[in-house]
Amino acid sequence: MINTNYQKLPGSYLFSTIAKKVKEYQEKHPEKEIVRLGIGDVTQPIAPTILTAMHHAVDEMGKAETFRGYAPDLGYDFLRETIAKQDYKARGCEIEADEIFISDGAKSDSGNIQEIFAETIRIAVCDPVYPVYVDSNVMAGRCGTYDEKRGMWSDVIYMPCTRENSFIPAFPQETPDVIYLCLPNNPTGTTVPKTVLQDWVDYANKQGAVIIYDAAYEAYITESGVAHSIYECEGARECAIEIRSFSKNAGFTGVRLGFTVIPKELKRDGVSLHGLWARRHGTKFNGAPYIIQRAGEAVYTVDGQREIKEQIAYYMRNAATIKEGLSDAGYEVFGGVNAPYIWLKTPDQMTSWEFFDRLLEKAAVVGTPGSGFGPSGEGYFRLTAFGSYENTLKALERIRTTNL
Amino acid sequence: MINTNYQKLPGSYLFSTIAKKVKEYQEKHPEKEIVRLGIGDVTQPIAPTILTAMHHAVDEMGKAETFRGYAPDLGYDFLRETIAKQDYKARGCEIEADEIFISDGAKSDSGNIQEIFAETIRIAVCDPVYPVYVDSNVMAGRCGTYDEKRGMWSDVIYMPCTRENSFIPAFPQETPDVIYLCLPNNPTGTTVPKTVLQDWVDYANKQGAVIIYDAAYEAYITESGVAHSIYECEGARECAIEIRSFSKNAGFTGVRLGFTVIPKELKRDGVSLHGLWARRHGTKFNGAPYIIQRAGEAVYTVDGQREIKEQIAYYMRNAATIKEGLSDAGYEVFGGVNAPYIWLKTPDQMTSWEFFDRLLEKAAVVGTPGSGFGPSGEGYFRLTAFGSYENTLKALERIRTTNL
Repeated sequence: MINTNYQKLPGSYLFSTIAKKVKEYQEKHPEKEIVRLGIGDVTQPIAPTILTAMHHAVDEMGKAETFRGYAPDLGYDFLRETIAKQDYKARGCEIEADEIFISDGAKSDSGNIQEIFAETIRIAVCDPVYPVYVDSNVMAGRCGTYDEKRGMWSDVIYMPCTRENSFIPAFPQETPDVIYLCLPNNPTGTTVPKTVLQDWVDYANKQGAVIIYDAAYEAYITESGVAHSIYECEGARECAIEIRSFSKNAGFTGVRLGFTVIPKELKRDGVSLHGLWARRHGTKFNGAPYIIQRAGEAVYTVDGQREIKEQIAYYMRNAATIKEGLSDAGYEVFGGVNAPYIWLKTPDQMTSWEFFDRLLEKAAVVGTPGSGFGPSGEGYFRLTAFGSYENTLKALERIRTTNL
Repeated sequence: MINTNYQKLPGSYLFSTIAKKVKEYQEKHPEKEIVRLGIGDVTQPIAPTILTAMHHAVDEMGKAETFRGYAPDLGYDFLRETIAKQDYKARGCEIEADEIFISDGAKSDSGNIQEIFAETIRIAVCDPVYPVYVDSNVMAGRCGTYDEKRGMWSDVIYMPCTRENSFIPAFPQETPDVIYLCLPNNPTGTTVPKTVLQDWVDYANKQGAVIIYDAAYEAYITESGVAHSIYECEGARECAIEIRSFSKNAGFTGVRLGFTVIPKELKRDGVSLHGLWARRHGTKFNGAPYIIQRAGEAVYTVDGQREIKEQIAYYMRNAATIKEGLSDAGYEVFGGVNAPYIWLKTPDQMTSWEFFDRLLEKAAVVGTPGSGFGPSGEGYFRLTAFGSYENTLKALERIRTTNL
């Protein structure tokens, strides 16, 4: 009577295994100070303008005349309209407020969005990528069987992204129904030019596929010619769902807020995906907290924008520091220009986990093994720019001076 | 390629239809002041002790040394331990902190919990009941076909709760795999003695069924001999999942916090349901906001408890007022003693919707048609005690003096 699909998932989640290894190391070496550049959690505190907005909203909740009960399932208009205006219309994307669904975060949305599709769809994912896309589909019974040795699911279409193709996925040979694109990519820290994204939109429209576009890192884009939203591409309203997060641009990992955009034109089998997602939200979700939605709104104020840009610049200085430092030390490094992740090729043909173990043992630095993000991540390693600058320098110094 | 199960759901959600009718009425009669005793949303502001805790937590998020990023997926220990101690151990229930899963609310948990079961399970529900249990199972393809005329799904086991059986469900003739019990019940406002609940636990253990026990209204129980938690019953650790909410006891409808308890002994097909739910949380959820979890903790302080008890007493005075008033006016009324809902038999054999329309048209009072909660709700009507005392009196006066 249980959902046996859950049993198919490999025993332990990537970050649990890392946590366990780190704990064991610390117990064996209590004197060592471990520097963590593993999990993608931010470290800078919430910006002052956002704090003020939250304090104000807390006060409102304490008075009968300004108290707010159930929020609208799909989000407060004040936030949806702000997003439509500043994230979309300001970039020339025709997205209306009522096409934006506010949620408690991009992880929930990334995990739940598969529900509106049939059990029989074929999904395609970049390889390596954020594990939630595949795992949530496995739990829904979509991915076939797992080949432990290859680290691959029989029914998933993998699109390898490696240094050989400059981390730009090729169109798959089999035809997917749903294509997950995370750009800028987690974990590789790389992205694609807007022209390439346009090719993907054209491909999806030609094949009738739906693109689920995870733009959680768009605020880190520094290069021109890179799209911040998939709706900058022509025809995207007919094929793309976009998921956004406040976790990385405004430090909301512990505040929890995100949103998903589904244009009204997006239909499959004659049915509006907007309507399906609205029904899902209405039935299994009860809105993001009022206080947190006010925090989200504050992100878009002039002061809020200035403050979060400083935070992003802080993290991107870390990224540049890691990238340069490792490059000087002879490592082959990628990413870090349009994303807060550095992706490095492990030296001496070490596996990702071998490099993880050595880095921890010899330098007391924690990163994330690339193989945890998919089979093509093997032989790579992820470092994040989300630490403090001091810790970033410390980690770098240790990596450079240790014979790994 | 879409999930066609969504298409099987009847067109419009109960509360959307109500909202539409109310809007039309107001447009037609702009001078009328409508009193809303329909949707179960609270009106009292958040208690002072909880506000203080939230302000403090907001301040913590603004300083690097106290900032909190990702929360543990399953909740912060400070909250899980407080709940284990005060909601369970204080009542003699052996529930450990690590059996408690913190979430963004009971609606999400009620909707998502079905995921850990196979697609082939049979569910049983009290009739009438909170619509999310059935709807979320329909979306997962479990409920067969809908008979619009009877308002029933072919594969759902309905357990009628009417005045004829004092709203106490009988064991079903068919054997369910999962039994949803919402006690005290929404919408009938009634509950069962602990001895009856013990019978249900024994029944579930004998049949190998799992009980999903929604205890969202437990704080409203005033009578002794009624269980606040299903774990007060012997053997419940082997068969029951309990879902709790902060929405109704502490006014968190717009704050969003809830939790689900799954004891470690609860296994089916040899698999721990605790492990399955942990995996679901870990994959598709990223923890409730730190600020909100601190708010939840404050609910359990001495001052917090005193303050929320005053709010509950305020609403229960409304309940008693409605109940007495309607009873005096010749209505047959139920509930309102252990729950904030009044359930009344419509007069003159009116249907639920006929009574809704008349009440709106003639008295400008909004309630909820009982048939919206299940076929056996036909001929009944729900009023909630969550309005202000003044509005409650106003509604009552109108109902008493109007010839409906």
